[in-house]
Amino acid sequence: MGSSSDWETMKHACVALEELGVEVEKSVISAHRTPDLMFAFAQDARENGIGVIIAGAGGAAHLPGMVAAKTTLPVIGVPVQSRALNGLDSLLSIVQMPAGVPVATVAIGKAGATNAGLLAAEILAVTDASLAQRLHDRRQNAAKVAEESSSQLV
Amino acid sequence: MGSSSDWETMKHACVALEELGVEVEKSVISAHRTPDLMFAFAQDARENGIGVIIAGAGGAAHLPGMVAAKTTLPVIGVPVQSRALNGLDSLLSIVQMPAGVPVATVAIGKAGATNAGLLAAEILAVTDASLAQRLHDRRQNAAKVAEESSSQLV
Amino acid sequence: MGSSSDWETMKHACVALEELGVEVEKSVISAHRTPDLMFAFAQDARENGIGVIIAGAGGAAHLPGMVAAKTTLPVIGVPVQSRALNGLDSLLSIVQMPAGVPVATVAIGKAGATNAGLLAAEILAVTDASLAQRLHDRRQNAAKVAEESSSQLV
Amino acid sequence: MGSSSDWETMKHACVALEELGVEVEKSVISAHRTPDLMFAFAQDARENGIGVIIAGAGGAAHLPGMVAAKTTLPVIGVPVQSRALNGLDSLLSIVQMPAGVPVATVAIGKAGATNAGLLAAEILAVTDASLAQRLHDRRQNAAKVAEESSSQLV
Amino acid sequence: MGSSSDWETMKHACVALEELGVEVEKSVISAHRTPDLMFAFAQDARENGIGVIIAGAGGAAHLPGMVAAKTTLPVIGVPVQSRALNGLDSLLSIVQMPAGVPVATVAIGKAGATNAGLLAAEILAVTDASLAQRLHDRRQNAAKVAEESSSQLV
Amino acid sequence: MGSSSDWETMKHACVALEELGVEVEKSVISAHRTPDLMFAFAQDARENGIGVIIAGAGGAAHLPGMVAAKTTLPVIGVPVQSRALNGLDSLLSIVQMPAGVPVATVAIGKAGATNAGLLAAEILAVTDASLAQRLHDRRQNAAKVAEESSSQLV
Amino acid sequence: MGSSSDWETMKHACVALEELGVEVEKSVISAHRTPDLMFAFAQDARENGIGVIIAGAGGAAHLPGMVAAKTTLPVIGVPVQSRALNGLDSLLSIVQMPAGVPVATVAIGKAGATNAGLLAAEILAVTDASLAQRLHDRRQNAAKVAEESSSQLV
Amino acid sequence: MGSSSDWETMKHACVALEELGVEVEKSVISAHRTPDLMFAFAQDARENGIGVIIAGAGGAAHLPGMVAAKTTLPVIGVPVQSRALNGLDSLLSIVQMPAGVPVATVAIGKAGATNAGLLAAEILAVTDASLAQRLHDRRQNAAKVAEESSSQLV
Repeated sequence: MGSSSDWETMKHACVALEELGVEVEKSVISAHRTPDLMFAFAQDARENGIGVIIAGAGGAAHLPGMVAAKTTLPVIGVPVQSRALNGLDSLLSIVQMPAGVPVATVAIGKAGATNAGLLAAEILAVTDASLAQRLHDRRQNAAKVAEESSSQLV
Repeated sequence: MGSSSDWETMKHACVALEELGVEVEKSVISAHRTPDLMFAFAQDARENGIGVIIAGAGGAAHLPGMVAAKTTLPVIGVPVQSRALNGLDSLLSIVQMPAGVPVATVAIGKAGATNAGLLAAEILAVTDASLAQRLHDRRQNAAKVAEESSSQLV
Repeated sequence: MGSSSDWETMKHACVALEELGVEVEKSVISAHRTPDLMFAFAQDARENGIGVIIAGAGGAAHLPGMVAAKTTLPVIGVPVQSRALNGLDSLLSIVQMPAGVPVATVAIGKAGATNAGLLAAEILAVTDASLAQRLHDRRQNAAKVAEESSSQLV
Repeated sequence: MGSSSDWETMKHACVALEELGVEVEKSVISAHRTPDLMFAFAQDARENGIGVIIAGAGGAAHLPGMVAAKTTLPVIGVPVQSRALNGLDSLLSIVQMPAGVPVATVAIGKAGATNAGLLAAEILAVTDASLAQRLHDRRQNAAKVAEESSSQLV
Repeated sequence: MGSSSDWETMKHACVALEELGVEVEKSVISAHRTPDLMFAFAQDARENGIGVIIAGAGGAAHLPGMVAAKTTLPVIGVPVQSRALNGLDSLLSIVQMPAGVPVATVAIGKAGATNAGLLAAEILAVTDASLAQRLHDRRQNAAKVAEESSSQLV
Repeated sequence: MGSSSDWETMKHACVALEELGVEVEKSVISAHRTPDLMFAFAQDARENGIGVIIAGAGGAAHLPGMVAAKTTLPVIGVPVQSRALNGLDSLLSIVQMPAGVPVATVAIGKAGATNAGLLAAEILAVTDASLAQRLHDRRQNAAKVAEESSSQLV
Repeated sequence: MGSSSDWETMKHACVALEELGVEVEKSVISAHRTPDLMFAFAQDARENGIGVIIAGAGGAAHLPGMVAAKTTLPVIGVPVQSRALNGLDSLLSIVQMPAGVPVATVAIGKAGATNAGLLAAEILAVTDASLAQRLHDRRQNAAKVAEESSSQLV
Repeated sequence: MGSSSDWETMKHACVALEELGVEVEKSVISAHRTPDLMFAFAQDARENGIGVIIAGAGGAAHLPGMVAAKTTLPVIGVPVQSRALNGLDSLLSIVQMPAGVPVATVAIGKAGATNAGLLAAEILAVTDASLAQRLHDRRQNAAKVAEESSSQLV
């Protein structure tokens, strides 16, 4: 993530991944404050054994796109809700990438961070049947919770 | 894709994948006109050997999210540019998914479709070193083209 | 509704209907978490004696449109106010349906939910003169309240 | 509709209704230019045997809401695409009605007009099994067309 | 104004007018709840000695435009800040009037209400030199306040 | 107006005024290119016998508000449709004035310009019964045109 | 700045400049309330030894553009976050200047104010090596802070 | 600029600078396609004798902000008009920079590019009286052109 203030949002990605038993490495790497660190991280990510990168940032959110410019690993971008424009700036800065360098963008804020974790797991599960099963089980549970909540409406 | 009128956009995803030597299966499946077909397709996708699903739609674009609701394969959503609102409706309908069911959203229109193809390839390349190499080569070529264009400014 | 957290909004539809003496059945059915349940519900609605369906959801709000895809009963969509984008995403996801599958969309949030209830009653009142009369009376009362409030401005 | 320039859009509502064998009466009635006519029309609509009113307008689109203020018949609002703001103004002017007076809003432009026709038919079909059947058949045909288009992608 | 809940905003128009010694008549008249009252009020306004009408409303704000449709007196529209869309819907519903029926629109919320009062006074001052002088004096005072605040920055 | 390129829009204000027999003076005065001229014009307007000022501008449209800052005559602002943002920037730059300096804002583009002319006439007609009558007649004609167009729908 | 209520935002520009040892002069000068003062200030700025002007304003924010119209010194505009539209109106009113009169626009709100201070320093540092060094050091510090925050994520 | 397709826009910056006799160096450097080149260019710019950097890009426009992250020279960002969202995405991606790394943002499209050239000249003119004079003369000419156009309105 680009700033420690994004952690409140981004921790939801970690929670989702940890619940699924996927190993997570987390760090604050800022496109604007530590650009060289960002480039080194992205460039070496594949050979460091990283499978998927989740990058969250707000406002003029350049982190996901710039990481994606330096690796061909899948990069997931989480638009952090910004103060003035509620994350619309974050969303457009992340999703509107030019042809050639994709960023897999998810929803603004916490729901997006959770989904970033799940999407990373889905990507790894393409060739990991056991993880695919755990994802499937998580869906079944969510369905059960939804159905049960129906009977509790007052 | 949800309609054959989306093909003008979505073919750019196919082009990108075919250039990278990734096998593609394409079809018109509409969330609103053929909902049962959509559910059957999504539910059976993993056991039919599909690795990644790319879904493009415009306006109240429900196809990507509903496919994602029926599979734990990675689903990439392409917001097709809509007539009145230029694809802002398509984008928000696809990207703002609730926690639990992610859609990997790319840019509105043709650039997004190309990137959907590249993102699908990046996902498959997590465990396919040869495809990763082809993705890397594609990036090198794009860099060369960009650099050469610099000397041709009039 | 798609989630029990929507109840705070959607109960206003129930209140309006109950005040008018229209029978209501309420449940949490999620497009993304319980998609099969949603399809079954929508497909069987007419023969289960349901006259109008009210579906509320927020963000990438697919519930109203997908229910509408599985029935030719009138479906009313309520855009629930979302956290980041204040319901603009919910509104566009619900109202911008492609030709062929209409959703009768009302305002974002509580006012919309109340109006969803009233609209459902108006639909049933097309062939129910007594209900039409009760709707008419409700309007008369609202006019009286508005007129009286005029004299109380400080 | 509020202006004869809206006819290009609104005729799609008529087409849909005529294909389904529903009787249509059409007229230009402007909220701003012929307000008294509008009020008279709306007030007398139910006793004139009208079942559903479709009102289309663009920009500061007051026609649907003002008609709805003068009748308890279901009123469907079609946001006509406006010159400067592409119909976003029309949409918000129609859909954001206060609690008490609902307008069943459909999508901006031609798709919305078609759906207004279909929605009106769905409303009438709540107590007209034969019309319900014709709506069902129309859906079946649309599904067939969608499926066939899939095999024609180039 | 359309609702007594708009008073919190609209009273600022009254304050401005009263400070300038302009006579004010205030009432709740709702486009949607008391449409006939609205028409009667607007139609008779000129012969009742009213010079300028200020109409405030929020959401699908039809009051200013509909009043304007029934009188050729100048009508000033105040977009009241709405719950979900912060008054953008109110603004567009009021300002985007079709050619033929103008509404003099001011800013969203309290500043707009104050300015509605001032604008009404400016209109009456076109042929009232004494009022024009009072408006001029008010500006002088505001300038003095601004200049003095400059020395108090901490 | 701020630029001769705005004339295409602003001439509709002149047409409306001339049809009503109101004397018009027109000039290009730019807030950004000829600011001193603008201030001199605004400051002297009242004593030069001007009754109402219509100012049209696009983009960061400062002309109406700055003219209003230098006079207490009523100032009508016309948001000219801009290239990139379709006049939304023009509209917000004109309408969102702070408390103290009102601008009577009309719709974006040609309809707005026509209405600016009509609004200026309405303002002058507050104390000009003959002009008020001509405005009334214009409305009657518009109503007739609207009603006649109804019978010509194909 | 245009109002003392902008000081809460604009003081962040002063802080940044003072930390860098750049001399600051601050005042409330309102485009709308003290227009003549604004023009005098801008016109005389260069010969009064001012190097860069920072102007902050909200809503229909005319101050930066009007100052820029009266000087060829660099003018930096800070969009102050507005009540209803969160500063989107401020941003568009400042940034969308017509060709001929540039305003160097920064982000909405406090971050923008800080950056206005830094940008002013960067401009002065083009020919001031010592200031350039202090800017460089500030960046180094910010990088260090970012890196350290990474180890403190919980 | 980030792509040779931006040249159509960005050449207006060159024209403005060349008319003012300011030396220009132009190149295509893409944040996403040639990130290392971008970093090297930005990092070495000051010692290569560059005074101001103008960076134009569209969509998820990361070039200006990333260049700014690697230099403390003033960086001017030009939002190029994008296909789907008309440059609103470009604008927000450029202007909404976090505190610490400013980008001097100008208007969307050609007017913005011209102003980027003028702003760069204004920055250099802070300590270059002759350039300041040429900027002043350019303004005088523009005023003359505006005044003359006033007499040519038809």
